[in-house]
Amino acid sequence: MTAFDRLMAFQRETEALAQIAGRLGWDQETMMPRGAARQRGEEMAAIEGVLHARRTDPRLRDWLAKAEAPDAAGARALDLIGRTLERTACIPADLASETARVTSLAQGIWAEARARDDVAHFLPTLAQVIGLKRDAAAALVAGGFGGGDAYDALLDDYEPGATAAGLAAMFGRMRPRLVALRERILGSGVHPAPLTGHFAEGRQLGLARDLATAFGYDWSRGRLDLAVHPFSSGSGDDARITTRVVEGDPFNCLYSTIHEVGHAAYELGIDPIHAMTPLGQGVSMGVHESQSRIYENQLGRSAAFTGWLYGRMRDVFGDIGVAGPEAFFATVNRVTPGFIRTEADEVHYNLHIMMRFDLERELIAGRLAPADLEDAWNARFAADFGAAVDRPAHGMLQDVHWSVGLFGYFPTYSLGNVYAGCLHKALRAAIPDLDAHLAKGEARVATDWLRAAVQRHGGLYRPAEVIERACGFAPTEAPLLDYLEAKFAGIYRL
Amino acid sequence: MTAFDRLMAFQRETEALAQIAGRLGWDQETMMPRGAARQRGEEMAAIEGVLHARRTDPRLRDWLAKAEAPDAAGARALDLIGRTLERTACIPADLASETARVTSLAQGIWAEARARDDVAHFLPTLAQVIGLKRDAAAALVAGGFGGGDAYDALLDDYEPGATAAGLAAMFGRMRPRLVALRERILGSGVHPAPLTGHFAEGRQLGLARDLATAFGYDWSRGRLDLAVHPFSSGSGDDARITTRVVEGDPFNCLYSTIHEVGHAAYELGIDPIHAMTPLGQGVSMGVHESQSRIYENQLGRSAAFTGWLYGRMRDVFGDIGVAGPEAFFATVNRVTPGFIRTEADEVHYNLHIMMRFDLERELIAGRLAPADLEDAWNARFAADFGAAVDRPAHGMLQDVHWSVGLFGYFPTYSLGNVYAGCLHKALRAAIPDLDAHLAKGEARVATDWLRAAVQRHGGLYRPAEVIERACGFAPTEAPLLDYLEAKFAGIYRL
Repeated sequence: MTAFDRLMAFQRETEALAQIAGRLGWDQETMMPRGAARQRGEEMAAIEGVLHARRTDPRLRDWLAKAEAPDAAGARALDLIGRTLERTACIPADLASETARVTSLAQGIWAEARARDDVAHFLPTLAQVIGLKRDAAAALVAGGFGGGDAYDALLDDYEPGATAAGLAAMFGRMRPRLVALRERILGSGVHPAPLTGHFAEGRQLGLARDLATAFGYDWSRGRLDLAVHPFSSGSGDDARITTRVVEGDPFNCLYSTIHEVGHAAYELGIDPIHAMTPLGQGVSMGVHESQSRIYENQLGRSAAFTGWLYGRMRDVFGDIGVAGPEAFFATVNRVTPGFIRTEADEVHYNLHIMMRFDLERELIAGRLAPADLEDAWNARFAADFGAAVDRPAHGMLQDVHWSVGLFGYFPTYSLGNVYAGCLHKALRAAIPDLDAHLAKGEARVATDWLRAAVQRHGGLYRPAEVIERACGFAPTEAPLLDYLEAKFAGIYRL
Repeated sequence: MTAFDRLMAFQRETEALAQIAGRLGWDQETMMPRGAARQRGEEMAAIEGVLHARRTDPRLRDWLAKAEAPDAAGARALDLIGRTLERTACIPADLASETARVTSLAQGIWAEARARDDVAHFLPTLAQVIGLKRDAAAALVAGGFGGGDAYDALLDDYEPGATAAGLAAMFGRMRPRLVALRERILGSGVHPAPLTGHFAEGRQLGLARDLATAFGYDWSRGRLDLAVHPFSSGSGDDARITTRVVEGDPFNCLYSTIHEVGHAAYELGIDPIHAMTPLGQGVSMGVHESQSRIYENQLGRSAAFTGWLYGRMRDVFGDIGVAGPEAFFATVNRVTPGFIRTEADEVHYNLHIMMRFDLERELIAGRLAPADLEDAWNARFAADFGAAVDRPAHGMLQDVHWSVGLFGYFPTYSLGNVYAGCLHKALRAAIPDLDAHLAKGEARVATDWLRAAVQRHGGLYRPAEVIERACGFAPTEAPLLDYLEAKFAGIYRL
C-alpha cells in the first residue's frame, strides 16, 4: 500500500464517521425523544472527539509528505486533507474545547434571550463567544490563514478563496441597485394580495412531496420529515430534507422544501467516485446556497413554475382565493419590508446580509463592542429598511449564528444568491425552452443540467472555479441584479 | 486522576459511541432510505472499528492492573471491562474480520434461500459460519473461557454463568411437562375461536401506544415506530421500540409492542448512576427476555389484563366478533401447533427453543454436519410437534440467528421465560391485588415492582443473581410450568 492509499483508506473511515455525526444531528432535530437531550450531548461529544483525533492524527503529516496523487482528484483530496489538518492544528486544544463548551451553552442562552427580548441576558455570552472567535482568528492568521486578516481567516472556513475586501466591493455594487429597486417597488402602487386561509398540514406535506419529486429529488436516497428549523443533512446516498408547516402560510412549507431539495440535490448529484472522500460533499457554503436558492427562487418562484403550482394548489386545497396564475405569481413574489431575514423576499434578502456582514466585521475587528451592537443594528436597519426595529427578537437577537460562533458565515448566503444568478443565466442559455418544462412542473430538467454543470464535481474545484466552469464566465453580481430588476419590473409594472 | 477514573472516563466515551452504533442500527431498520444501504454498511464498519479499537486499547490492561474500585459497582465495572477485553483479545484479528465479512453477506444469502425455500443455496455459507464460530469457540476455550466447553464459551457471550449442561438438565425437566400439557390441550375438545376481521393500521398503532402507556413506557425517553421485525434499541435516556402491523391480526402489533416495552422498560429503569458505564445496560439476554416475556405473557395475556383490553378493543374497533372477556382471554391464548417459533403460543414456544438448542450444540461440536441439518430438524420437529415440516422456510430456514453467527443465543429465550415465571411468582406475592390493577389497565404497578426488584440494577449483579435477589429464591423452571398448567387448565377445562 502506498502512502496515498493508506491516507485515503484512513480518510474514508473519517468521512464515514462524519456522516454518522451528521445523522445524529438529523435524529436530534427530527426523531429524538426530548428527554434524551443530555445523553445525546455526551454522544455527540464522543463522536466529535473521535473525529477531531482523526483529523489531527500525527500519521496524517507523514502520509501527506509521502503521498503522490495519481490524478487531479487525488491532488485536490490531499490539498483538502492538509488544509483541514493545518487549520485544526492552528487552534490550541484548550481554545477548541472552551469554544465547544461555550457555544453549546450559548445557543440555549440566546434562545432564552430571544424569547424574552432580553439583550442583556445574551451580551456576556456574546462577548465571550466573540472573544474566543477573535482568539481563533488570531491563531489562524499566525498560522498563515486569511492573508493577515482576522475576518478572512474565519470566512475561509465557509468559503475558501473569498475575502472580506472582495465581498465588500461586490456588496458596494449591489446595494444601490437593490435599494433603487426596492424604492420603485414600494412606490409602484401595486400591492399583490397575500394568501389567506387555512391549509391543512397533511395536504401541505403531500404537496411538498410532489414538489420535491418535480425537482427530481431521489426518494430512494432521501426522506422528508418535520423540523422546527428546516435543514438538509447527509451526503452520498443518504441526503435527507426537513420542512415545517404553518397552517396559515403554505409557502413556508412549500418553499422551504424546494430550498432543501436544492441542498440535497447537490449532495445526491455528486459523482459516486468522490463518495467518502474529501471531495464527496458540496465544496462551500456559497456554492451550496447557490443550489438551494436557484431551486427556490429562479426556478420555484418563476412565472412558469408558479403557473403549474397554482393548478396543483387548487387540486389540493380547492379555491385558494387567488384569481389566476398571474395573480398567484405576484402573490408568491410579494415584496414586503420586514424585520426577519429568513422571511425576506428576494429583493430585501441581500440587504439583510449586507448589514450583518458589516456588523460582524466590526465585531471581529474589535471596533464595535458587543454592548454597542444593538444600537448599531437598529441604526443600520432604519437606514437600509426605513423602519425602526420594534423589539430585539426582530433585531439583533433574531439569528442563531453568532451565538454558536458562526462569524464569516452570513456573506455566503449572498454569495449563493449571486452564484445562483450566474447559473440561472447559463441555464436559460443552455435550455431555451426551460419555461415550457417548468410550466408542466418538469423542474427536473434544471436538476439534470445543474448536476452535470455543478453538482457532480463535489469538492473537485474551488468554489468560484466550479461556478465559472459551469457558466463559462467569472461569477459577478450582475446576472442576479438583472434578473431581479426584470422580474419585479414585470410584477410591479415598473 | 486515578487509574480507575481514567479508565471510567475512557469507558464512558466508549459507551456513548456504542449508543451511537445502536442508534444507527435503529435508523437502518426504521428510517433509512433503501438506497443508502451500501453506504450505511461502510458507516457501521467505521464505528465498529472505532469500538473494537477502544475495547482492545492497550492502555486498558494498564489501567485495569492499577485501578482500585471505590465500591461494589466500580468493582463490577472493572470485571465487565476486563471480561470484554479478554474475550475480544482471544479472537485473532483475522478471524474477527473474516467473521464480520462472512456474516454480513450470510444474512442476505439466508434471506434469499428462505424466500426461495432453497436449502442448498444457504448450506455453503452456513458451513462457513459454523466453521468460523467453531474456531472462535476454540480460541475462547484456549483463553480460559467456557470451562473447556466450546458451546459454553459461545453461550457465555449472551448469558454469562449459564452452561449447556445446566440448560440441558433444565430442559430435560421441562420437556415432559410441556409435552403432557400440550397433549391434554390438543385433546381437550375445546377450540377457542381465532380473531377475524380487518383492523386498520392507524387504529392498531393508536391502541399499541395506549398499551405502552398502560405499562408505564416513558414517552419522553422513547418512541414507537414501524419495523419489519419488531425490536427495541438504546439505553439510558433513549430506549426506542418498534412494532409491525398485520391488518388481519392485531395481536401481532399489540403483543409485540408490549414485548418491546418490556425490553425498553428494563433499559429505562436502570439507575441513572449506572448510565454510560458497563453497568448501564441489561445484564444478559436471558434477563432481558424475562422482562419482555413477563410484560407480554404473564401480564399482557393474563385474564385480568385481557379483560381490560377487550373493552379497549371494542372502543377502538367496534364489535370484534368475540362474545365477552372470557372468550377473548381464550382467543388471545389459543394454543395451536405451528411451524414458526416467533408465532408460537406459550406452551409450544420452549419446545421450539429446545430443538434449536440441541441441534446447535451438535453443529458446534461437529457431530452434526450442516448438510444433515435439514433431516435432523425435520425429524426432531415431527417427534416434538407431531407434524411434518412442509417447506424449509417453515423449518431450518425460518430464523436469521445462525446465518449471523448467533450460536448460544437461542437458549436465552427460554431462560427468559423461566426467569419471567420466577419473577411472576414473586410479583404476585408482593402485590396480592395485582389483578385488580391489571383489570383497570394499570400494568404500571408491575413495572414499578420490576424496576425496583430487577431493572434498576442494570449490570450490577450477575444474571442468575439478580433474579434470585428479586425473587428471594434461586431461579428454577417450576414456577413457569406451574403457571402454564394452571392457566391453560382453566382455558381448556383440563
